[in-house]
Amino acid sequence: MINGHSKESAAAGRTKITQTPLPTGRRERRAAETRIKLFRTALALIAEHGLADVTVEDITEAADVGKGTFFNYFPTKEHVLGVMAEIQLGKLEEAAASIAAGREPMHEVLHKLVERLAEEPGRSPRLARALISSFLGNQGVREILKRKMLEGRKAIAEVVRIGQERGEINSSLKKEVVAMQLLQMMLGTVLLWSLHEKPALSQWIENSFDHAWRAIAAPGK
Amino acid sequence: MINGHSKESAAAGRTKITQTPLPTGRRERRAAETRIKLFRTALALIAEHGLADVTVEDITEAADVGKGTFFNYFPTKEHVLGVMAEIQLGKLEEAAASIAAGREPMHEVLHKLVERLAEEPGRSPRLARALISSFLGNQGVREILKRKMLEGRKAIAEVVRIGQERGEINSSLKKEVVAMQLLQMMLGTVLLWSLHEKPALSQWIENSFDHAWRAIAAPGK
Repeated sequence: MINGHSKESAAAGRTKITQTPLPTGRRERRAAETRIKLFRTALALIAEHGLADVTVEDITEAADVGKGTFFNYFPTKEHVLGVMAEIQLGKLEEAAASIAAGREPMHEVLHKLVERLAEEPGRSPRLARALISSFLGNQGVREILKRKMLEGRKAIAEVVRIGQERGEINSSLKKEVVAMQLLQMMLGTVLLWSLHEKPALSQWIENSFDHAWRAIAAPGK
Repeated sequence: MINGHSKESAAAGRTKITQTPLPTGRRERRAAETRIKLFRTALALIAEHGLADVTVEDITEAADVGKGTFFNYFPTKEHVLGVMAEIQLGKLEEAAASIAAGREPMHEVLHKLVERLAEEPGRSPRLARALISSFLGNQGVREILKRKMLEGRKAIAEVVRIGQERGEINSSLKKEVVAMQLLQMMLGTVLLWSLHEKPALSQWIENSFDHAWRAIAAPGK
């Protein structure tokens, strides 16, 4: 369906996947590399053309692997987008660990975190719509996402607990509820932005974060 | 694709459409009635079976009209769901008018409003997913939605202005930004709930509204 795709769009699909260390065996290492390659290629194509106009063949051709290979890694093209949940969870867990270690004000820490989480879907409104659609339309992908979101909420709740301990986040709020609200803010913002397309997602996130912070800051902060 | 649908599901699809008065000419009146009938029938079927498993034939058969009739009113089945945006906008504008007239506390007024807005999508997670998917996947539906959301935001902004005038909503906030955040809260909540399915959307909305109110209440309110 797609006649060609540029080096630029392939480069745009490059994403750091840091939370899963590559396995040490040669065969396992190659399999992990192929999986990541398929993900990056799919992401770049879908960001440019939209989910409906990208086929599995488009992805395997652009990634230079056989069509059958694709199905060794993913049951459907929607499942490729489920990898995004892994990446976002990795960012969250990294952030949670560095917050526990550091003493940066909670406002800056959470601000940076939501900015980082917005980077991937913010690449293109088409991509963001494809991500949400793949979660809505496919039960398998939905189950993956729900598991990752549960882990993500736990990581955010831990950050909130630290913020409450330090007197920066309102301690009368339940940390799990705050975590859910922050996640919801991210998703709602990405959804609305993906419909409107302008300005950049990062600007939408600014407004949303200001608003969310007012709801959770400790009184007088 | 669907072998039968119960009286119950047809009844569940019943929705008050109050904001568009029926036209007075017989032909126009009948056309408006058919449009609403198609919408209600589609909604009931999609709520039960999901967007992918309901065809235009399913809808026209259940509504007892010819298949061709459907396309006199809607270019695709996704466009039927665009009618939902009209209904929600009607609720919003009604609420805005009654707020301007009455003296009920702003907290109760907004609380009731978000509860009312959650009624339609809250009918079934399948329906909510179908609604969001139809907005994401179809540019025509997206344009309809964006226009309705713009009008909706204006209606909410007017409510916010009144709340600020009465000293109940923080007057340092821009009313358009607050309106956008409230809309985003609704969408984010419906999206997350549609993925998790439990408990009822009305309970999710409770938490979200509490959170949103803390972000917009006038200091000390």
